[in-house]
Amino acid sequence: MQFVATEHQHRRLNPLNGQWVLVSPHRMQRPWSGQEEKPQLNEQPEFDPTNPLCPGVKRPNGIITERYDSTYVFDNDFPALLEQVPSPPASDDPLFQAAPARGNCRVMCFHPKSNLTLPTMSVMEIRAVIDEWIRQFNELSGKYAWVQIFENKGAAMGCSNPHPHCQIWSCSFLPTEPQQKQERLRAYYATHDRPMLGDYMERELQRKERIVIENPDWLVVVPYWAIWPFETMLISRNNNKRINDLTDNQRHNLAVTIKQLTTKYDNLFKCSFPYSMGWHGAPTGPEHAHASSAHWTLHAIYYPPLLRSATVRKFMVGFELLAMPQRDLTPEQAAQRLRDSDGTKHYLSK
Amino acid sequence: MQFVATEHQHRRLNPLNGQWVLVSPHRMQRPWSGQEEKPQLNEQPEFDPTNPLCPGVKRPNGIITERYDSTYVFDNDFPALLEQVPSPPASDDPLFQAAPARGNCRVMCFHPKSNLTLPTMSVMEIRAVIDEWIRQFNELSGKYAWVQIFENKGAAMGCSNPHPHCQIWSCSFLPTEPQQKQERLRAYYATHDRPMLGDYMERELQRKERIVIENPDWLVVVPYWAIWPFETMLISRNNNKRINDLTDNQRHNLAVTIKQLTTKYDNLFKCSFPYSMGWHGAPTGPEHAHASSAHWTLHAIYYPPLLRSATVRKFMVGFELLAMPQRDLTPEQAAQRLRDSDGTKHYLSK
Ligand SMILES: O=P(O)(O)O[C@H]1O[C@H](CO)[C@@H](O)[C@H](O)[C@H]1O
Ligand SMILES: O=P(O)(O)O[C@H]1O[C@H](CO)[C@@H](O)[C@H](O)[C@H]1O
Repeated sequence: MQFVATEHQHRRLNPLNGQWVLVSPHRMQRPWSGQEEKPQLNEQPEFDPTNPLCPGVKRPNGIITERYDSTYVFDNDFPALLEQVPSPPASDDPLFQAAPARGNCRVMCFHPKSNLTLPTMSVMEIRAVIDEWIRQFNELSGKYAWVQIFENKGAAMGCSNPHPHCQIWSCSFLPTEPQQKQERLRAYYATHDRPMLGDYMERELQRKERIVIENPDWLVVVPYWAIWPFETMLISRNNNKRINDLTDNQRHNLAVTIKQLTTKYDNLFKCSFPYSMGWHGAPTGPEHAHASSAHWTLHAIYYPPLLRSATVRKFMVGFELLAMPQRDLTPEQAAQRLRDSDGTKHYLSK
Repeated sequence: MQFVATEHQHRRLNPLNGQWVLVSPHRMQRPWSGQEEKPQLNEQPEFDPTNPLCPGVKRPNGIITERYDSTYVFDNDFPALLEQVPSPPASDDPLFQAAPARGNCRVMCFHPKSNLTLPTMSVMEIRAVIDEWIRQFNELSGKYAWVQIFENKGAAMGCSNPHPHCQIWSCSFLPTEPQQKQERLRAYYATHDRPMLGDYMERELQRKERIVIENPDWLVVVPYWAIWPFETMLISRNNNKRINDLTDNQRHNLAVTIKQLTTKYDNLFKCSFPYSMGWHGAPTGPEHAHASSAHWTLHAIYYPPLLRSATVRKFMVGFELLAMPQRDLTPEQAAQRLRDSDGTKHYLSK
């Protein structure tokens, strides 16, 4: 029998972290009688006087959120990382290793209105978000080894506030995911003398099987090794290393690309598509300021949980937690569906 | 300032996979206005004529589930792994690596009654589950490199059927998690000439900070490197390598231990406590039959998602997916609460 990727289970390797994913496309037919998500609809009021992210509202700690009219950044009132804490004592026991962790956590509102999301904001408004990301990155990257900009969108992805916002967590150390990427990208560069993601994009542009959006500055693909059903990677085509490398034009095109991609997501299941997304680029801070970043390519990753509809998600549980990630439809099938999904007109717009 | 683990954020290393977790205990105070889970209560009828896992009910594929009176095992009707599939073609491109994956997936019902769970079953009934695990393992481990026994309990953990059951997925290859463990355990053994988890248990028994249950055959701890709020490890104290090594007495004590641990879980937030759990031991199949398993120690891992109550869970999203796992309360605090939770009388029993 001939191997057919859309029919026959197989494993694929993620060269960025060395981990395999099990692809079982024949499993899409299975009935679902488990938990159903509440479909996320845009039902927020424009202004909610009880929502601490809205302009002019008092937060639990008594501070009043400014009456902002574009983006707005403030320190997270319950940060996972603080700047000043004592270090844990050193231990020579390999089974009880602790290490210091310093940093800070900021919340960044995208827009004063609670009932907007990136796909329903204008390109100019998204551009303001990108400019603010870069201002924050410029400030924080001087001091911290890793500045993680990320957005949890939708209750299904643990977002605790429906107002359009993201978070920026800065770390005095390189966390596990970027640390693994750093090693893998460096090893590839040492062998091939080219950044891995540059080679990867080249081949994706030839094969045309997993492309979702393509323009002169940005490429969006469902990676060959995607874990989440409609996972995508948004990659810089200009050999940018960090988000603050972007030129004016590249920022503009990024705003256009983000609007397109998130519109495609929303249109796919006619809902406000939940996801976690974030930016990865070369490490920063005094420690990495003089290290080569030639092996890096700036990219964002989108991890959306939905599998079959606005209410049926993929759970990363049992086998996934204990053995390895498993996906149902193939990355090529997901890319096809995202290509076919309209990226210009949002399903809610008239 | 003096470092205090319950107050000051820090990182801890998991020696079983080399990954760090960020511990931020000061974050427990943060308010929660995100998604609330439906508290899982034992509201199932004893028999549901529409549930394909109940005795005598017809499954979607037309096969009738036997009228069983203890455990019952059948092939998953929508398996992620099949025995006979063609292999993907070999590729010499490091960015597009695929590999074969063969196996099978079984469903194992714990009990004929839909309204029971492990903590509300008798020790004798749990013992029957353990004996069936071992029968299955004996049969499947001859052929497959990895036999993953796991239970997804509760809708919050993606369980698609409320009838008490687990799954057994067998693989022709070693999945990522056990592969990493295999390497780490082997390296530790090469240096220390003792199995890592043997040394680990010894130190936990001295320190007494993270113990939840202790008896002559089994130790339950919240591991020093736990990621999920109330994660536990149930470890064999008899240097067992695989689940089918267990003596009659060890199996009996395992049934007692599982009943205690799951009762503690249910009593903690007065709900049917959701989790994913599974067994890890030395690899199997023809490939590993003659390899040394001296570095292994049989253990089960419980990953429960709840954080603060029956309705507020920990989400592993944004920062966790893109950077590294993060937890709020310390493993020591979690262990204390599980120790204090009653392990003998279930909150629903009269
Ligand atoms: O097989 P089930 O119970 O239908 O499915 C559940 O467990 C599987 C194994 O962990 C996961 O792949 C699924 O996402 C989850 O919903
Ligand atoms: O900071 P938030 O939005 O309250 O919290 C959310 O994002 C964090 C960072 O990914 C996670 O640690 C939390 O589990 C999640 O609920």
